[in-house]
Amino acid sequence: MARTRPLKVALLGCGVVGSQVARLMTTHAGDLAARIGAPVELAGIAVRRPGKVRDEVPPGLVTTDAAGLVARGDIDVVLELIGGIEPARTLINSAFEHGASVVTANKALLAQDGPALYAAAEKHAADLYFEASVAGAIPLLRPLRESLAGDKVNRVLGIVNGTTNFILDRMESTGASYGEALAEASALGYAEADPTADVEGFDAAAKAAILAGIAFHTRVGLDDVHREGITEITAADVASARQMGCTVKLLAICERAEDGRSVTARVHPAMIPDRHPLAGVREAYNAVFVEAEAAGRLMFYGPGAGGVPTASAVLGDLVAACRNKLGGGVGPGESAYARLPVSPMGEVVTRYHISLDVADKPGVLAQCAMVFADHGVSIDTVRQTGKDGEAKLVVVTHRASDAALGATVESLRRLDTVHGVASTMRVEGE
Amino acid sequence: MARTRPLKVALLGCGVVGSQVARLMTTHAGDLAARIGAPVELAGIAVRRPGKVRDEVPPGLVTTDAAGLVARGDIDVVLELIGGIEPARTLINSAFEHGASVVTANKALLAQDGPALYAAAEKHAADLYFEASVAGAIPLLRPLRESLAGDKVNRVLGIVNGTTNFILDRMESTGASYGEALAEASALGYAEADPTADVEGFDAAAKAAILAGIAFHTRVGLDDVHREGITEITAADVASARQMGCTVKLLAICERAEDGRSVTARVHPAMIPDRHPLAGVREAYNAVFVEAEAAGRLMFYGPGAGGVPTASAVLGDLVAACRNKLGGGVGPGESAYARLPVSPMGEVVTRYHISLDVADKPGVLAQCAMVFADHGVSIDTVRQTGKDGEAKLVVVTHRASDAALGATVESLRRLDTVHGVASTMRVEGE
Repeated sequence: MARTRPLKVALLGCGVVGSQVARLMTTHAGDLAARIGAPVELAGIAVRRPGKVRDEVPPGLVTTDAAGLVARGDIDVVLELIGGIEPARTLINSAFEHGASVVTANKALLAQDGPALYAAAEKHAADLYFEASVAGAIPLLRPLRESLAGDKVNRVLGIVNGTTNFILDRMESTGASYGEALAEASALGYAEADPTADVEGFDAAAKAAILAGIAFHTRVGLDDVHREGITEITAADVASARQMGCTVKLLAICERAEDGRSVTARVHPAMIPDRHPLAGVREAYNAVFVEAEAAGRLMFYGPGAGGVPTASAVLGDLVAACRNKLGGGVGPGESAYARLPVSPMGEVVTRYHISLDVADKPGVLAQCAMVFADHGVSIDTVRQTGKDGEAKLVVVTHRASDAALGATVESLRRLDTVHGVASTMRVEGE
Repeated sequence: MARTRPLKVALLGCGVVGSQVARLMTTHAGDLAARIGAPVELAGIAVRRPGKVRDEVPPGLVTTDAAGLVARGDIDVVLELIGGIEPARTLINSAFEHGASVVTANKALLAQDGPALYAAAEKHAADLYFEASVAGAIPLLRPLRESLAGDKVNRVLGIVNGTTNFILDRMESTGASYGEALAEASALGYAEADPTADVEGFDAAAKAAILAGIAFHTRVGLDDVHREGITEITAADVASARQMGCTVKLLAICERAEDGRSVTARVHPAMIPDRHPLAGVREAYNAVFVEAEAAGRLMFYGPGAGGVPTASAVLGDLVAACRNKLGGGVGPGESAYARLPVSPMGEVVTRYHISLDVADKPGVLAQCAMVFADHGVSIDTVRQTGKDGEAKLVVVTHRASDAALGATVESLRRLDTVHGVASTMRVEGE
């Protein structure tokens, strides 16, 4: 692998992550060269607004012509850190056509167009790496794709959005409302000005699609992922979880059905028991819990976002892509041979925690219990509390299909004695 | 990568791990073929005593001639699961000479002879993979070698021995003595008949050498690793840790010095704060906490031993070695370019928890404090308890060199008013 010509890298996007990648490529140049087996050189940095480029960035390399940079013909690896669908997609395809491998952190594009990108990479015998797209700095996709390549993953439970984990953690530790915790997250820079993508679960859903695809060797698109956010979570929900010895987390859950013949992917808030390793994941940290047939229960934990941690993941992929360029090999491509059908949310089997406001009179519990029985949903525990003519009924079910649980809740709502369904939440990780 | 001839695999050793590898290669044959890009075939299984072979193993493949199997000339990958130094070393070298790549779980051999094995692999353009040698099923070495290849690891703190973690966890959760907890571990199959390798830290020390070598791109041998076991840990130590909000764990610690110019590797029991992610690692689970300059604080958690989990790691490496065979590439070899010196234990900087039995009379605390000051060791907290003329002094120091801390303890022992040093333990993870 002796070679004197440096490998040339084009950096697209120079924001929070890109500027750190540029900085680390300079400060760690010697280590990168030793680990790759050849020097690596930043050949150009494409930005939208050159006036906004940060101090870390060598100014002579900056251009606004991303398309021209990618098409120069001498670029070995393109780092796509622009995000969003276009122009990122066109630039990545151009990179492959011009003989470059691609490292990207673009979860939205991968979740939407992963198969086409994989196909383009394969056609041009190039690499497509995207460790940074899920759970930031945590080495997760490489372990799933490579270390567990001889195993069978049955379930992935992930805290993959730092903003929502911070908000839920504050609600739990301080008793704050959702609004108060969101305000704190915004003030500390953990939530964006428009927090919709995070708090409504869109960000986590894109990551769930990527994770499910890799875990199950099956194409899973964004539309296959059931999605619920955390905006409806109340301080009372969090307190009720505490009473059960549980913590509320926004989880991305990818599951193989018990018969092994289909999979599901979903994002929603859920209660998990305090003894589960994910329950201890605080603040804006991410963690992904993997259950594999042979390996058993694994967890990967670390910072899920931030410019510097995410840059670490990008640079790890850069080293791999450069090593492959030098060695003549190519990293793992798409693995979708299993072609398992993705079942809708209704077929997910899980447990439910349901909190009802009911009339405080005899027979209400029996009436409610009958509704559960009618839908074939078995009750695990019931807790009844009441004062001043109003009572609360908290029911935790055994495992049942989400469709049956949903229908049960609908029927409960129609009972005269049920004044309201205060909350419903799934219980996971048991 | 279209190819019809299957890749041929020789399995050396068919004990707890090997028999599971053989079983999974059969039951997962279709998945392995899809993930590799060609079928993979078990060509032979070398055992010492063919009469003892388990049910899972196809009997026609069994041989006692390991050397002949490896030298057949048509073997693509050799899985070395015999353990120990010889004949494993000779067989691995023969495998390389005959054109095969090698997957091994042999931590003892790697810690002793890693550089020679790497050199042999490189000479023959073969792969040497050994994910299963450290922390069983947990994907750890691949993330360290590849995902963090663009980052700088500053510290690795690992619970890498399940037997000792089980014993310490029982001591903490039940108040048992070391002997009682060891007996329970033996009864449950977590400790071997002769537990020396585990409880005296030899097993963890071999893993520490491997981890430090990979983390710091520097050769670290077994002799470079300071080693203390857990046999002296008392119920009182564990209770004292609890009082400080700490847990006692046997840790493998690999550290870069603050000036970045040297590294250390050590295995010893230590107190870590309950809020540290490693504190929650219970029973026989393993976990490795990694602090990297850019990625930040990462943790990898899972089963550290057992036939089935370890087989998962072996098969992951098998897939990688087979993919490289087909694609013409080769995985990462030895990376020891940094050549950092490994400093002795005396230069390690850490904190100490020291428990002294002292005379219950005025001036003792002042006298002891003077000894610490004389050695330049600054005291963080002191707790004094006493009854019936005997008193206890528990001192927690600030960070100081291990040499200074050791000298302090020696001087304390020589004081007339100090009747004994009940225990000394390092405090880590803060």
